[in-house]
Amino acid sequence: MDKKIILASASPGRKELLENIGLDFLVMPSNIEENIEKIEDIESIALEKALGAAKKINFPAIIIGSDTIVTIGSKILGKPRDRRDAFNMLKTLGGKTHKVLSAIAVYDTETGKTVKTSVKSDVTFRKLEEREIQNYINTGEPLDKAGAYAIQGVGSVFVKSISGCYSNIVGISVYKTAEILKDFGVKVL
Amino acid sequence: MDKKIILASASPGRKELLENIGLDFLVMPSNIEENIEKIEDIESIALEKALGAAKKINFPAIIIGSDTIVTIGSKILGKPRDRRDAFNMLKTLGGKTHKVLSAIAVYDTETGKTVKTSVKSDVTFRKLEEREIQNYINTGEPLDKAGAYAIQGVGSVFVKSISGCYSNIVGISVYKTAEILKDFGVKVL
Repeated sequence: MDKKIILASASPGRKELLENIGLDFLVMPSNIEENIEKIEDIESIALEKALGAAKKINFPAIIIGSDTIVTIGSKILGKPRDRRDAFNMLKTLGGKTHKVLSAIAVYDTETGKTVKTSVKSDVTFRKLEEREIQNYINTGEPLDKAGAYAIQGVGSVFVKSISGCYSNIVGISVYKTAEILKDFGVKVL
Repeated sequence: MDKKIILASASPGRKELLENIGLDFLVMPSNIEENIEKIEDIESIALEKALGAAKKINFPAIIIGSDTIVTIGSKILGKPRDRRDAFNMLKTLGGKTHKVLSAIAVYDTETGKTVKTSVKSDVTFRKLEEREIQNYINTGEPLDKAGAYAIQGVGSVFVKSISGCYSNIVGISVYKTAEILKDFGVKVL
């Protein structure tokens, strides 16, 4: 495999997930605006991120773009704007089940081959006290996370159970990514 | 909180899970034999581990013991004895859903207060090729893990979905541990 693999994301969670499976890749975040209004948008945004990274390089690469949103009822929760927004999101999620959707887009700069898909998981939170939510916001962890929590961090104490793919909740389904990469000639095992 | 918290386990996965929630603790593995013949044994073994660590210290502490097994049908899978055993375990798990049970025992050396419980999660593997299983065993990852895989490592590429608590599959339910610790006066948030 001569081609470099690039993760077009600034998310430490995604980076760690892909490092955990021994994938050798570069991280190259692209500055795509994430104004998501429809659930269908996330696959396009994931692809835009991959294409954005492609413009920055002059060598052949397989680029992985990704995007994550949280939905509850008809609401779409992206990253909170501020502490108050984070508080309201966590207040909404407490004691209920929500969905996490993460899109994966993989783009081969040499062949132009593109695959995009998304994975959905359910997450059930225990009831949250307002004091806990404030303490959690004080850790700083929720402020750059879709839905205002990180399941791989302190936020894990809120998570009673999940149904579906875990890594998808962190930010990218490892299972699905490995499956797609295989189709691009990249084998994990 | 004057008392130290001790994790009576050598598992790096458990250590990382509890570090992720900002818990301040010492690691003190106890050398308990893990010959599990009945599912009910795991809570006793978790408690034995906590009591084993208690014998080593001369200061007041809250000690967390834990133990994990994998079950599929009527089979109980602990840690594999060798590569062949790991191969057979992974062959059994491929394309099927199994259960992961992790027990948590918490013991206060000062008051003698003891709480033990266990948490169950379902894990669904995709189909595995024999070559993949061999390559996975070559990483060394499966050899000291119950059921011969680590969901937090390269093993994550095998995991299609889970149902229940994720951290329980890694080795200890963070949600449940935080709940029990609260009852011992230790607050995570």
